[in-house]
Amino acid sequence: MMAGYFSGGMLPIRATFELFVRRLPRNRAYLVAAGLDQALEYLESLTFLGEDIDWLRNQPAFRRVSSEFFEYLRAFRFSGDVWAMREGTPFFPMEPMLRVSAPIAEAQLVETALLAILNFQTTIASKAARIVHAAGDRPVMEFGARRAHGLEAALLAARAAYLAGCVGTSFVEAGRKFAIPLSGTMAHSWILAAPSEAKAFSSYADLFDQQTVLLLDTFDVNVAVKTLIDAGLRPQGVRIDSGDLAAASRSVRDQLDRAGLTSTRLIVSGDLDEWKIADLVASRAPVDTFAVGTALATSDDAPALGGVYKLVELEEGGVIRKVMKRSEGKGTWPGAKQVWRSDEGGIAAGDLISLNDEPAPSSARALLEPVMRVGRRVTPQPSLEEARGHCRRAIGALPSRLRGLAAEATYPITRSAALATLTR
Amino acid sequence: MMAGYFSGGMLPIRATFELFVRRLPRNRAYLVAAGLDQALEYLESLTFLGEDIDWLRNQPAFRRVSSEFFEYLRAFRFSGDVWAMREGTPFFPMEPMLRVSAPIAEAQLVETALLAILNFQTTIASKAARIVHAAGDRPVMEFGARRAHGLEAALLAARAAYLAGCVGTSFVEAGRKFAIPLSGTMAHSWILAAPSEAKAFSSYADLFDQQTVLLLDTFDVNVAVKTLIDAGLRPQGVRIDSGDLAAASRSVRDQLDRAGLTSTRLIVSGDLDEWKIADLVASRAPVDTFAVGTALATSDDAPALGGVYKLVELEEGGVIRKVMKRSEGKGTWPGAKQVWRSDEGGIAAGDLISLNDEPAPSSARALLEPVMRVGRRVTPQPSLEEARGHCRRAIGALPSRLRGLAAEATYPITRSAALATLTR
Repeated sequence: MMAGYFSGGMLPIRATFELFVRRLPRNRAYLVAAGLDQALEYLESLTFLGEDIDWLRNQPAFRRVSSEFFEYLRAFRFSGDVWAMREGTPFFPMEPMLRVSAPIAEAQLVETALLAILNFQTTIASKAARIVHAAGDRPVMEFGARRAHGLEAALLAARAAYLAGCVGTSFVEAGRKFAIPLSGTMAHSWILAAPSEAKAFSSYADLFDQQTVLLLDTFDVNVAVKTLIDAGLRPQGVRIDSGDLAAASRSVRDQLDRAGLTSTRLIVSGDLDEWKIADLVASRAPVDTFAVGTALATSDDAPALGGVYKLVELEEGGVIRKVMKRSEGKGTWPGAKQVWRSDEGGIAAGDLISLNDEPAPSSARALLEPVMRVGRRVTPQPSLEEARGHCRRAIGALPSRLRGLAAEATYPITRSAALATLTR
Repeated sequence: MMAGYFSGGMLPIRATFELFVRRLPRNRAYLVAAGLDQALEYLESLTFLGEDIDWLRNQPAFRRVSSEFFEYLRAFRFSGDVWAMREGTPFFPMEPMLRVSAPIAEAQLVETALLAILNFQTTIASKAARIVHAAGDRPVMEFGARRAHGLEAALLAARAAYLAGCVGTSFVEAGRKFAIPLSGTMAHSWILAAPSEAKAFSSYADLFDQQTVLLLDTFDVNVAVKTLIDAGLRPQGVRIDSGDLAAASRSVRDQLDRAGLTSTRLIVSGDLDEWKIADLVASRAPVDTFAVGTALATSDDAPALGGVYKLVELEEGGVIRKVMKRSEGKGTWPGAKQVWRSDEGGIAAGDLISLNDEPAPSSARALLEPVMRVGRRVTPQPSLEEARGHCRRAIGALPSRLRGLAAEATYPITRSAALATLTR
């Protein structure tokens, strides 16, 4: 398509694309915008290497494409403007979470990458928000690297989970790269490799000065907890990873308390998700921390987000053309848009989607903000910690019905009269 | 745990870990091993950078760890041996698809990465095999980059899909990196950006010498096909991406044939999966190629594979100790193992899981082969094309009942008497 725009003399056309979802995934009443930092990093660093250009040029499909096109690629940089929702912002179907305005060939090229980056982190952040909500005031750790869709996905899942309220990750590289708090525990292999469970526990606790978490379920949870008590250990925490977690947590808590280890924290793991956590919370299981892997790092009940990136506006020589597709069940709304959120008493009361050139409604906040101008990030961008704080506050300001696990509640989204008229 | 092995003087212990799944994911009657090439590449290239070591050393958890440990990391290389199933091999629960023997700290370190790499590609290859089977003799293209879990996942999903029988991908970078055949089509934005649909079609078809695929559903499929016929175009293919694909494909085929465009191929896309493809095939829709995105690149019905990596054997000073965990519902089988597959008349009749030091059964093939010795790949490794051929033959040699979409059939897996006795 870039070769087509180039060959057709269409490079002077400036295009605006918007990224949004048409409907909510299963079990979701809202989404949490995430991945913007990686998306902007991609746009800032995008170039074609000489070897890539040589490879493209040799593809049979390109045999009619002029050599000027490949020269154009050689000098290629993304020079567009980007507006986006802040990371951590809850959003809804048909609301653009990102808008790109750039020469048409540039805006087109970045479609797949922007979608892959933003769809994924938004998927994980939206799942993490549910899990964190289910855990109530108990912290949730992200433990899913081994089940993520490869190592890059593991890294970005840890980031998105932290953004949406998890307190840390077990993936050391994510801690290093994003300054996410790290916490892990031993594996069962540590116990199996030692001469005895007692020796396994005591050597680990000594090395890490009791600031560690001992794993209780390699053989028998109740024997293991007696073993660590008899050895005089006072670990920061213990973890149970299998069996009936509610029953085991009660029995372990009881044994620890009777031995005076009242400050030893109890961590549970093992195929947890928001529903199992809600059950454990409802059963008053004495769990201090939930560690969640597979369900979180893959968003297993809704692993894909149907984000799309659609052309809404063209400008050439000062003339603006607002466009839409009418495909059955996949139509779009024309024109560059803005999303306005109204509050009532500190709680979000509804959103308005309007054309970007309409006057601002009174007393509503614009959710799309400029984040990149002429290919360079607008500074300062919020840090991950700031985005995490924003996310906590913004989810806290949603109507409480939206946070229920059943995800049956809806939120009022209105289209402006001008947008409705233009669409018609 | 590495610091623990180091501090505890356990480095001389040689450990054997096996990677396997405990049960099949939903809707799967078999799995397809994939990702070995990336796993071995990871093991061969694994080192610690100086800056990473400095960062680790400053983590509060490591304050009691001796500086000798960090010197050990500085010289770290993976020096182990690896046995694995060839990529493309169908396998079943409790069968190790990979076995690592190495000094214990090395074998432990690589757990998370090996799982993330192999779980993911195996997930996608196993899904792709179902989709390819549903399509029968019609080719399936992988179109899912935008919905994959980030750009690395998109790249590896394209690879795994091709391995398991897809004919190509729309992700150009996957074509460049893995020599996977590329095929794509225009987006709706190409049509919207042009002065008219007729102009959009003809300029694209001219540039690519009719060797392209025109997208019909931006406004109205039947108008679009009339437009391209009236313009005298003879595109290689046309694509329908929305609406009732069976009805639209019949109407489009009919119009094309009546205009003499009998060799123009008909490609359909739009949230396809193996069940929707089976329905289209059953309804005799005149589709030539299926393009599958989201469902394939995320394995949306079963997005995570519960692969685990478990310690089975330890060796120190010539003394071997075979170990297992007994956790409730998560127990393992002890000892290094081999998997043997028997054929009857060219069809797989059953697998035997035995201890590696048992004599080979008569007339069965060993599925685990040596792929790395002392940290270096055994050469030659099969190319992606060879692995793809092996996959096609190996899936073709499964009992046909296993290939049904209902995935209700089972396959006989036997444990050797010696392994059963040892486990008891």
